[in-house]
Amino acid sequence: MTESPIVPVILCGGSGTRLWPRSRATCPKPFLPLVGDSTLFEATVARCADAEGFAPPLVVTGAAHLAHVEAQLGESPGAQVIVEPSARNTAAAIALAALRLPPDAVMLVCPSDHHIADPAAFRIAARAAAALAREGWLVSFGIEATAPETGFGYLQRGEAIGELGFRTARFVEKPDLERARGFIADGGYAWNGGIFAFRAGTFLEELAAHRPAIAAQARAAVAGGHQDGARFHPDAAVFAAIDSESVDYAVMENTARAALVPADMGWSDIGNWDALHAARERDEAGNSARGRAELVDCRNVLVETDGPRVSAIGLEDVVIVVDGDEVLVTTRAGAQLVGKLTGASSQ
Amino acid sequence: MTESPIVPVILCGGSGTRLWPRSRATCPKPFLPLVGDSTLFEATVARCADAEGFAPPLVVTGAAHLAHVEAQLGESPGAQVIVEPSARNTAAAIALAALRLPPDAVMLVCPSDHHIADPAAFRIAARAAAALAREGWLVSFGIEATAPETGFGYLQRGEAIGELGFRTARFVEKPDLERARGFIADGGYAWNGGIFAFRAGTFLEELAAHRPAIAAQARAAVAGGHQDGARFHPDAAVFAAIDSESVDYAVMENTARAALVPADMGWSDIGNWDALHAARERDEAGNSARGRAELVDCRNVLVETDGPRVSAIGLEDVVIVVDGDEVLVTTRAGAQLVGKLTGASSQ
Repeated sequence: MTESPIVPVILCGGSGTRLWPRSRATCPKPFLPLVGDSTLFEATVARCADAEGFAPPLVVTGAAHLAHVEAQLGESPGAQVIVEPSARNTAAAIALAALRLPPDAVMLVCPSDHHIADPAAFRIAARAAAALAREGWLVSFGIEATAPETGFGYLQRGEAIGELGFRTARFVEKPDLERARGFIADGGYAWNGGIFAFRAGTFLEELAAHRPAIAAQARAAVAGGHQDGARFHPDAAVFAAIDSESVDYAVMENTARAALVPADMGWSDIGNWDALHAARERDEAGNSARGRAELVDCRNVLVETDGPRVSAIGLEDVVIVVDGDEVLVTTRAGAQLVGKLTGASSQ
Repeated sequence: MTESPIVPVILCGGSGTRLWPRSRATCPKPFLPLVGDSTLFEATVARCADAEGFAPPLVVTGAAHLAHVEAQLGESPGAQVIVEPSARNTAAAIALAALRLPPDAVMLVCPSDHHIADPAAFRIAARAAAALAREGWLVSFGIEATAPETGFGYLQRGEAIGELGFRTARFVEKPDLERARGFIADGGYAWNGGIFAFRAGTFLEELAAHRPAIAAQARAAVAGGHQDGARFHPDAAVFAAIDSESVDYAVMENTARAALVPADMGWSDIGNWDALHAARERDEAGNSARGRAELVDCRNVLVETDGPRVSAIGLEDVVIVVDGDEVLVTTRAGAQLVGKLTGASSQ
């Protein structure tokens, strides 16, 4: 018996204001070469490409980013794109993909704006997740929780499911610092990496059970849609009426079939400039510079400039970004506030 | 009897690399509006203009800065300019001016790149200095020494000369930190503000006594020079051969006729970005911004940008300067190293 293929479902949404001014509405985070030479989107595609058991990718994106997606897909034989007429969050986006696949296809849902340092470990975890998905589980990638981060969701490990993973005992989205510290001390929690595996049919069943309206509207949007080459366009009016809800809230927190696979693969959501600095190669002083830069007596400084020379003296734990007519200078701790700056929020 | 007039002798030399990248070789520090709306040069001229007892200024500058000088002199009736064929430091520059004035004219030698917050106090000190100069003293402005700065010269106050000032017991140029601390604790020392008053004839006598070669060569350069409208051009070949020495070393440290007048006038040499920050108007958080800037959770931050917006988060005691294709970010403590940056030193 041939196993059903793993179909990478790559989600390209979001505006990425937290990496402003490099990430802008016109060219957001997935399409920028933030770590290494590839863009985050290209790296996401490449992680699943030409690997045994993986089918060509199915990309879900908005019309605004379609040009970036198609340019960066490059030579990806068999790749398909679903063009969202509007942004309705991940539950609806994943439903569109599930409805375009055979029911027994294993969807590997991947955000396109994360960094994974160890693609081989990713593929091992993906195969374990796919195996559980074929048994009917809705599987999350559980990232080892190394610090009491309050910006992530936490997955509590339940009983083991064979050698492959664990039941997910519960989801806790963005706990406060005290709870997060408790989770780290407990040791039985993992971060929700936002990567999921499930059969298309299983997902649609669970969506119909817990969010019947979203499931029905997505089905109608696909039924009323049309194909155009490798692009599929759902019905715009129907799709626009769907509730905007994340897959975490709509399905993963409600299903009785939640599981997780541990994934130790150098994951980062590159959630802000501080996280990007951590993912970058750094010199012995902890500095990382792209573009023309001179650093004197600096430690743990990130410099990124698209043209002007940056000269820095005496700084520690500071991020400097020059992009066009914007200059950002922030402490690493302040990086989480970047999205609230006038420049970032008024794009 | 009519008192001899006070002739402002304004020295415009130097490259000002310590305020790079705003101050550049093509438009150095004196010609920039660094504090308030006027340039430092304009403010220097204005401090002496139209005040009782002050003659029109005599500016000594190099050919490279002549266009700036003449543009910024604007309507200054009677102003004269001596164009140095090369830069030979302050002893030679002042000698040129002295040789172009009547022997009993009181020269008030003013650097053109300092800031004086209280021009009225400056004029009071200038008249006291001029009165001593008419008695044959070579007078320094003594700035109240408020901190053990190692970048300044120190003047030790000797016995009082009437109500006007004091003999200068000795000069100490740029002491180490321990000595500077001792001077502050002693209380009998003032900073040398680089502003001097003396009769032209007295200065030339003292120069001839202590540096006869400089005196003779300056006299020959003037004798071989030529007038061109309001400009005077000394003989280039003769002038180029003069020793390059500061007036402090050549004359003020050697003369037996050194005096000082206390000058409490909000003086700053704007010697680096930190000093400029201190001279600028600041908000209640100690921040000062020129150009488009958004500061979030910042304290004692200076932002200066000639175009791009600067967004800053969480910084304390940091200077950010954007000028053309250069971006400088430095701690205030690091500001003293700016002149050594590649960008500053390779102009």
